[in-house]
Formats: sequence, structure tokens, C-alpha cells
Amino acid sequence: MTRQQATIVFDVNETLSDLSPVAASFEHLGASRELATTWFATVLRDGFALTTSGGDASFPDIASNNARDLLSTWVLPRDLDESVDTVMTAFTHAPPHPDVADGLQALHAAGHRLFTLSNGPTTTAERLLDEAGARGTMEELLTVDGHSPWKPARSAYTDARGRIGGSDPFYLAAVHPWDVHGAANAGLSTIWINRSGRDYPAHFSPPTLTVSGVDEIATHL
Amino acid sequence: MTRQQATIVFDVNETLSDLSPVAASFEHLGASRELATTWFATVLRDGFALTTSGGDASFPDIASNNARDLLSTWVLPRDLDESVDTVMTAFTHAPPHPDVADGLQALHAAGHRLFTLSNGPTTTAERLLDEAGARGTMEELLTVDGHSPWKPARSAYTDARGRIGGSDPFYLAAVHPWDVHGAANAGLSTIWINRSGRDYPAHFSPPTLTVSGVDEIATHL
Repeated sequence: MTRQQATIVFDVNETLSDLSPVAASFEHLGASRELATTWFATVLRDGFALTTSGGDASFPDIASNNARDLLSTWVLPRDLDESVDTVMTAFTHAPPHPDVADGLQALHAAGHRLFTLSNGPTTTAERLLDEAGARGTMEELLTVDGHSPWKPARSAYTDARGRIGGSDPFYLAAVHPWDVHGAANAGLSTIWINRSGRDYPAHFSPPTLTVSGVDEIATHL
Repeated sequence: MTRQQATIVFDVNETLSDLSPVAASFEHLGASRELATTWFATVLRDGFALTTSGGDASFPDIASNNARDLLSTWVLPRDLDESVDTVMTAFTHAPPHPDVADGLQALHAAGHRLFTLSNGPTTTAERLLDEAGARGTMEELLTVDGHSPWKPARSAYTDARGRIGGSDPFYLAAVHPWDVHGAANAGLSTIWINRSGRDYPAHFSPPTLTVSGVDEIATHL
């Protein structure tokens, strides 16, 4: 029996990377570690706002501006510029989740085609995959930048699919329900990586497949 | 000398309402009061995601789902359903900021046409304006619901302008830079209400006018 080769496009930030060092960086600066969650939500909020209103959205610019905005309301021991740099460095150097390296290797060994698709620059994915020793599992690292609006706009997925040229089954894999929803609405199959065991929000289209880590995907395909 | 009559469309949540009771409600439930900021950012993030991907976004549904999601990660003394209700009640009953009643009365007395335009239901604006004793200053309370995608999509502003039929000068007034940006990109003049003295984010189109409260607007028109 021959299994069908799948194409899987992975989201990057928080899907492959563990952002807990970003929380630690806020705490280390003397702010609340919960600011990390707020900060990441505001970055997506503003990026999506620019996408929906037709503006240009640069992930690193928004990330840096919003870290500055949140940190400016705290009295910090360090200079504000230096504090923003600390958070941004923690973000761009976030390590892979423990399930990523084995999971990608298993999928690659089984002959599936693997890609990344991020709203941010491909350099983040590249560094992360190098650290996981899994750069070679990926056929190409993609970003929406210069090609389409941010995910979850429909064209972000259809444009990536056009560039990749993959046949069915064609999956988007992400931890973020908004990303699963966008991909589903663009006609893709979807994999929701639910590491924390939370409920899927009722306001978004449900995933095709739910797993608790990247290392659980291969057995389901 | 006759001054020109302006049309001003006010955003509602956080622009007219003081959301600090929402932070207090999270704290009262045994969670972090900073969850209020995270929660509101995730509600907008998900609503904008649905707007950009062509889905239906109901503000109360998203608000309630996301309060549940955030609270589910805390060990709380009360039942989860009851806790979500507590947050939602604090949100829908948030009081007006102290500058709102006087500010709206002064604008109304000067002959300007005043409206609200929210991504949420008009009932929130109605209750808030009743509490401020300023319901009579508003010509009409508008929502995007049933008419257009959420702000900051261009058509949210152009549709409202079409329904109002206002001539220039035509302003959107809001505390949120993403709302100012969307209105500016839709051809409106804009008023940024900056109560906290923070910097305007460089990734959004700047406002026509910046004030520190609603009671400062009339002197600038």
C-alpha cells in the first residue's frame, strides 16, 4: 500500500517556536511576564487592521513599536530602546518546541513536502529550523511579504499554494485558530496544533485534524 | 462669524467607556487584572481576522468565547460560566469616562452633528450615553452589524457616511490608532483621543487632530 504524499505548510511564530523566553524577557526587564501574550495579540491585531484597511504591514516594525508602547507604561531599570531590543531579541531567537525536530524529521522521512508560511520574515524560520537541526526537512521557507496581504486573508494561502504548486492533500498547520480558519476558508485542509489542551473557539471554522504536537502529525496522514 | 457645522462619529468601547471595571472584574475573580488588556486585544484580533478572511464576526460572541478561553487557564473560585458572565457584565456596563458628558454636551450645543459607530451592538452605546445623561446629544447610534465588515475596513466608514449623509468636515473620533488609521484611509478627518499620553504608532496613518479627552474637541473645531 502506498500512502499519498501530502504538502504541509507550517506557520512559524508560536507554531514552531516556543515564545516563553519572550515572557521571561518582559519579567527580566521588571514588567509583567503576561505582557508577552498581550504584546503578541496587539501585533496581530494591528497587522490584521492594516491588512483589512489596505495598509502595508511590516511584522518587525509593528512588533517593535508595540513592545515600546507597552513597556513605556512601566518604570523600568533600563533605557527604553535597550528594553525593546531585549524583547525583540528574545522573540527572534525563540527556540523550537521539543516536538518540532522529531515531528518534522518523521514527516520528511515519510516523503511529505514541507514548507513554512509566515506573516514575518523568513529569517526567523531559518534560524529556528537551524537550531532544531531540521532546516533540511523544508523544501522552501515562505513569507507573505511582497506577495500578498497577511494571513488570514484568503489570498495569503492561495498565493502560497500557487507558488508551491502542491496537489491535494494540502494542509496548513498552525497553533492559531485564526490561521486554521483562514486556511479552511481558502479551501485548504488544516491541522490545529493544540499543545495546551484548550477548546477551539466557536467563532472560527474548525480544523480538519487536531494534534497535540508536530510529532503527532505523521501518524495521522 | 459662523463656524462650520461638523459631523463627528464616535467609536464607543474604550473611546466613550472606561474599561477599568473589566480589569477589576478579572482581579475580583482571582485572575490577573492585566488579562483585561489581553482579552480586549484578542477580541479585536479575532474580529479583524474574520473581517479579513470574509467570515461573520459577532462582537458579543467573540468577547464571550475569548473571556472563557483566557479564564480557563486560571484556577478560579467560581464556576467558569459565572466567571465569563461577570466579565461580560462589567464590559457591557462600563461607565463613561469623566470627560464624555461635558464634551458631548458642548459639541451638541455648538451645533455639531454627533453619532456613534461601533463594531459591537448599539445597546452598549445606548446604556452608556443614558448613564452620562448625553443620549440626546446623539443624532443616531450606528453599528457595522448587518451593514458592512468591521472597522477598520474601508467600507465600514464609507457605509456609515452614506447612511448619515454628512458633509465635510466629517470626523471619526476614537482612542484606537487602528480606527483612526482606517477612517483616514477611507477619506475621513480624524480625532485621536489620547487620554494616557502615549505615542501614536508609526505604522498607522496619523490623526488630523489629537486631544486628551472628548471635552477638548469643541474648542478645536
